[in-house]
Amino acid sequence: MPGGPMSQKNRQGVLRSRPKGLVADGDIELIETELPELVGGEALVKTTLVGIDAAARTWLDDQPGYLPPVQVGEVVRAATVGEVVATRCDAYEVGDVVTTLGGFSAYSISRDDVYTTVMGRVSAGTAGVDQEALLALFGSTGATAYFGMYDIGRPKAGETVVVSAAAGATGSIAGQLAKAAGARVVGIAGSDEKCAVVTDEFGFDSCINYRTTDLRAALREHCPDRVDVYFDNAGGPILDAVLGRLAMHARVALCGVISSYVSGEHPGPSNYVKLLAMRASMAGFNTLDNWGRFDEANAELRRLFDAGKLTFRSHVFDGLDQAIPALNALFEGTNIGKTFLRP
Amino acid sequence: MPGGPMSQKNRQGVLRSRPKGLVADGDIELIETELPELVGGEALVKTTLVGIDAAARTWLDDQPGYLPPVQVGEVVRAATVGEVVATRCDAYEVGDVVTTLGGFSAYSISRDDVYTTVMGRVSAGTAGVDQEALLALFGSTGATAYFGMYDIGRPKAGETVVVSAAAGATGSIAGQLAKAAGARVVGIAGSDEKCAVVTDEFGFDSCINYRTTDLRAALREHCPDRVDVYFDNAGGPILDAVLGRLAMHARVALCGVISSYVSGEHPGPSNYVKLLAMRASMAGFNTLDNWGRFDEANAELRRLFDAGKLTFRSHVFDGLDQAIPALNALFEGTNIGKTFLRP
Repeated sequence: MPGGPMSQKNRQGVLRSRPKGLVADGDIELIETELPELVGGEALVKTTLVGIDAAARTWLDDQPGYLPPVQVGEVVRAATVGEVVATRCDAYEVGDVVTTLGGFSAYSISRDDVYTTVMGRVSAGTAGVDQEALLALFGSTGATAYFGMYDIGRPKAGETVVVSAAAGATGSIAGQLAKAAGARVVGIAGSDEKCAVVTDEFGFDSCINYRTTDLRAALREHCPDRVDVYFDNAGGPILDAVLGRLAMHARVALCGVISSYVSGEHPGPSNYVKLLAMRASMAGFNTLDNWGRFDEANAELRRLFDAGKLTFRSHVFDGLDQAIPALNALFEGTNIGKTFLRP
Repeated sequence: MPGGPMSQKNRQGVLRSRPKGLVADGDIELIETELPELVGGEALVKTTLVGIDAAARTWLDDQPGYLPPVQVGEVVRAATVGEVVATRCDAYEVGDVVTTLGGFSAYSISRDDVYTTVMGRVSAGTAGVDQEALLALFGSTGATAYFGMYDIGRPKAGETVVVSAAAGATGSIAGQLAKAAGARVVGIAGSDEKCAVVTDEFGFDSCINYRTTDLRAALREHCPDRVDVYFDNAGGPILDAVLGRLAMHARVALCGVISSYVSGEHPGPSNYVKLLAMRASMAGFNTLDNWGRFDEANAELRRLFDAGKLTFRSHVFDGLDQAIPALNALFEGTNIGKTFLRP
């Protein structure tokens, strides 16, 4: 392939030092590397979009998790979507669109024996596939919303559902799934602009700007029948406030603790005692526990998407050199919808 | 009935002022009242045992709960067992042993149209019935352990189960139920004497004295495979410590918050985030939600009791004038097993 990708250089974002709190200049370095020679069973994928999510930030900490921490010197791990530009395996053809964990990298290698379940291959036949949707809806973000809302939240028609980080990638989908189940859905977000998107684009019934209101009073006003389901991306004082407004037999799905990923502190919610008074439950979950059910999740998300009942919004940072601002945007509260990095 | 009970006086413990923290002298006054004339549908029950539990203390606070607060001037509400000494209804015969919410009262009225499900009538035919067992095992105490451990905890053979307040009325049964399910059971209690009872009488595999050890270190030692089920009577720092030791997919049954009934403070457990990391769940429950399943609970408790796999221990205070020390014993940690007041 003269002049083809194999003769090109790769660009990769490599972890140089573990960030404390927000990612600082120098924690991730953009380097140029040689593209590896493909061996049998491999395909070379040109990254079109890197998905930026909170998990990527947690992998930079030296903490055991459901995947091992990224080591200093390694490429920063992240979900990606890309196109096959060279192949030495039967599973992929040139032109195939694939989702994988390509990381902060302009090119990555996909093997034909991994990620076949979760990080699915999308056939080259599906020209014009919405590559943003692959990560925003039909990847782990949508699946997280699906499993958290439907397995743990289990909203019923007429119930009141509250979602924090409602303008975010996961919260926006979780709320729309609750709407699809017939619930009344109240978002919590950090700006009036976000709240407008949450109600106008994502179709929530209302949205509370927690930065400018007394959250407890607002919850009483927005949730006159209390809260049957809470999808928590926030932790901290927001979790505590919603716990104080739980209805009998309420369900709380713990999805994330965005308030403390950076601070590292987890103030305990003293209103956990409401779980007792209200015979309520609070459960954590992890999307990757449900690999075997991703087809189920994607089928339902696809059905709602095709029916016009599910939408998403993208926030794209252009260039791998934007890796640090893109990651930090999640925690600075400046992002709306799904955050992408376009290499 | 000349000389019978109708000509006698009643003695009753009446709420005079709402206690703050422990019950103080004068908060409950022992008074003498006339025995009421029975009307149709009523039976007069001579109290043989008053069950003293944390619920009775919570009913003295002016807080909405699953039963309304006891009002100042009213008899203190409590579960009782007693014998029918006069009857004007078909449901009860003289000599019947009944359990009811007779309260701090030497005599009480049982109507034939209430409590027929939970506070069951025990036929006079069952002479020699163990009246302590009626409250310690086959009433709401045993049912609380049953529903909390089996519905929420769901211990499997070989799993590790931790129970706090393990020497108490509910915890001691909960732990024995987990043992019956084949689990390894570790108690947490507040003295070496209690720990000895927990292992020697109640058959737990081990017991941690949380007052004299570093609880976190002790949990690591006693629960090398982490904690699959935690039955929490404690709240506060004990709950936080056990949450920090949860195993994957652990279940936490919130039964009570004995650490804060008196203080009124509920420090939030910062280790609630372990629910997320461990895909674990934490749920409150209320025994009275399951009135319709009391027969199921009592049948299983009876089966285990008859098989010698379930035992209880009584701590009896003699005389209604001991009402205040009996109530406070629950919170001062001086009681072992089920606490009774014998009028």
